[in-house]
Amino acid sequence: MRRISILGSTGSVGVSTLNLIEETLTPGVDYVLEALCAGRNAELLAEQALKFRPAIAVIADESQWPLFQDLMRHSGIEIACGIDAVEAAAGRSADWVMAAIVGIAGLKPVWAAAGTGATIALANKESLVCCGRALIERAEAAGGRILPVDSEHNAIFQVFETTQRDRIRRLILTASGGPFRGKTREQLKSVTREQALKHPNWSMGAKITIDSATLANKGLELIEAAYLFDMPAEQIDVLVHPQSVVHSLVEYADGSTLAQMGPADMRVPISYCLGWPDRHAWKAPAFDLRAIGTLTFEAPDEDAFPMLRLAREALTVGGLMPVVFNAANEAMVQAFLAGRIGFLDIPDAVAHAMKKAESPSMALTGNLGHDIDRILLTDADTRAELAGRCGASEAVSAATA
Amino acid sequence: MRRISILGSTGSVGVSTLNLIEETLTPGVDYVLEALCAGRNAELLAEQALKFRPAIAVIADESQWPLFQDLMRHSGIEIACGIDAVEAAAGRSADWVMAAIVGIAGLKPVWAAAGTGATIALANKESLVCCGRALIERAEAAGGRILPVDSEHNAIFQVFETTQRDRIRRLILTASGGPFRGKTREQLKSVTREQALKHPNWSMGAKITIDSATLANKGLELIEAAYLFDMPAEQIDVLVHPQSVVHSLVEYADGSTLAQMGPADMRVPISYCLGWPDRHAWKAPAFDLRAIGTLTFEAPDEDAFPMLRLAREALTVGGLMPVVFNAANEAMVQAFLAGRIGFLDIPDAVAHAMKKAESPSMALTGNLGHDIDRILLTDADTRAELAGRCGASEAVSAATA
Repeated sequence: MRRISILGSTGSVGVSTLNLIEETLTPGVDYVLEALCAGRNAELLAEQALKFRPAIAVIADESQWPLFQDLMRHSGIEIACGIDAVEAAAGRSADWVMAAIVGIAGLKPVWAAAGTGATIALANKESLVCCGRALIERAEAAGGRILPVDSEHNAIFQVFETTQRDRIRRLILTASGGPFRGKTREQLKSVTREQALKHPNWSMGAKITIDSATLANKGLELIEAAYLFDMPAEQIDVLVHPQSVVHSLVEYADGSTLAQMGPADMRVPISYCLGWPDRHAWKAPAFDLRAIGTLTFEAPDEDAFPMLRLAREALTVGGLMPVVFNAANEAMVQAFLAGRIGFLDIPDAVAHAMKKAESPSMALTGNLGHDIDRILLTDADTRAELAGRCGASEAVSAATA
Repeated sequence: MRRISILGSTGSVGVSTLNLIEETLTPGVDYVLEALCAGRNAELLAEQALKFRPAIAVIADESQWPLFQDLMRHSGIEIACGIDAVEAAAGRSADWVMAAIVGIAGLKPVWAAAGTGATIALANKESLVCCGRALIERAEAAGGRILPVDSEHNAIFQVFETTQRDRIRRLILTASGGPFRGKTREQLKSVTREQALKHPNWSMGAKITIDSATLANKGLELIEAAYLFDMPAEQIDVLVHPQSVVHSLVEYADGSTLAQMGPADMRVPISYCLGWPDRHAWKAPAFDLRAIGTLTFEAPDEDAFPMLRLAREALTVGGLMPVVFNAANEAMVQAFLAGRIGFLDIPDAVAHAMKKAESPSMALTGNLGHDIDRILLTDADTRAELAGRCGASEAVSAATA
């Protein structure tokens, strides 16, 4: 019987994970839930907690605490509130943890979970982008491991032959290209928030959907892949594949390229992490290449979508530069979603923040408390640097004109 | 140091194997050659023998014996002639054997090799089609194993997770569709030998190229896959994929489909067998999906190309029916190559032979000498049945060639 925690249980990945667990595992026999943590959706968290009965349920947003307390009254389930409580819940002993908090907010909880020796299904890419190999080493030192939930890294993980890593030529991340594939930089100047939120293949949260439109998501994944598989930037390529059927590939030097394909359904990689090292016993939707018919592949346009190039630069500089890349992107996407800036302001501001960053290549020390503080400080500094760029739209357009 | 034998050393696969060995292994350190066997190309066999210095070199065709003796004079290498000598050479102790004799002629040598405990890289599909699981069991009982050289089975072998076989939904063999893909049965009536010999992607021998044009090759591979991976016919599908980039796939029930891709270059699967369980250290040509651009997939047309359906029927009947399918096809392809029959006479004759076959579902007994005799008798009976359809003398004499 496994003790399972879900960090970010009310988001898209968290909900899918709970659905899969409910459909395929028997509570009290296959698993018990240790912790459910959510950001601000108190209603859904309460509903999940009352159904799955975790040892503890935590809501991060303090403004939701009265409502959450009310909803959980007489439940007999321990409840808590605030980001420190989320971190504490993430650090509780568990066998399997879904780490699906979105953005830099996931950093401390993932650090905490990595210290427990649990198998961590990692959907929060920022923690890996910011902490790098140190996160993986921390998990492994505690007797656990990190399994990738991102469909691309999960695909690579499935066909990455660990005993043959010296014979790997390249990891190839596929990218849908997002809703603006084929557009020129000139055409991207006028795209709207609503257009950017229409992803052609995947149904995901707003932040990651915008990241798909800018290719920042693929940039983050490039950094993530480098750390996760311990491969240098030069051996990781990006291939635009609009149909999102081939989720990623590993090219071996002996002429074989292995790929994982499947429906664009996050339950597939989630189930893989849930079952690993076995394939989880659930009945996935049928997959029929005859019906799909055509798969296409093309090079990404790094002029129109410079986030990919910027991510590669951040990875090559190393140290805290990926933190700068991530923080700048996250700040600007929030501003874009709030309707305060234009689409091209995102990469322009990230390039600016990277140029302004101080001592970005300073490596992490392995002193985890200290390193986390440095990461969060860098994150805050980056956001402060960009404050003027993501405030008033007039100021932003003047700055980038 | 491995002791290596090459059966069928002057054919396309044999030559590629020797090239790979020469380019990547050190004679006397990594390997010594035990036996080189060829059908009728005495000049090339002699050239290979003088270069690679096997313990024995055997030419099957007795008409070539004087020439071969002459070419090998004073070489100090043991030489022999005739099909019995090929079988004896195949049965000599070795660690790794490339079994690349074309057609039913490969049957006895492969049987012999399977008894030695060697790792057998199997390119002769007829031996597996005719002997079925008994061949694999024989190899394993002797402490050896069968590795598939066919690009499709090699692809499946690379992504077939043996510990997860209960979670496999389907094996999916890809087929180029051959030069006549898209033609109707009516249009196929008038196609010529020269048109059939123009394979769009692969450079192979004449027999297998015609088999690609009729889809008989894919039919044989369907039977082969069923035996090799111990999977029922219902769990093996064929997908037409004209670009021959995805060499085959395994669909798992959890929503992941794994595929092996690569250039249409037989050195890729040969090297995989040569290196197994490691990936062989050679530098394969680069593989670039950006340059390829588009991959397409479609259902095979079993009306215009009935060989696929006939093969599935033969597999379902079991026993000796695959022998009938194979013998009928081989006899008719020879007649077609000789210009004596039309393209559609091939499937029509195979259907006829299968209808006429006696006791075809009788299983093999496990008595190997006896079973081989029954296989060869069935092979000869089938060719005799078709004598009138393809010109008597050649069809019958081929049975013992």
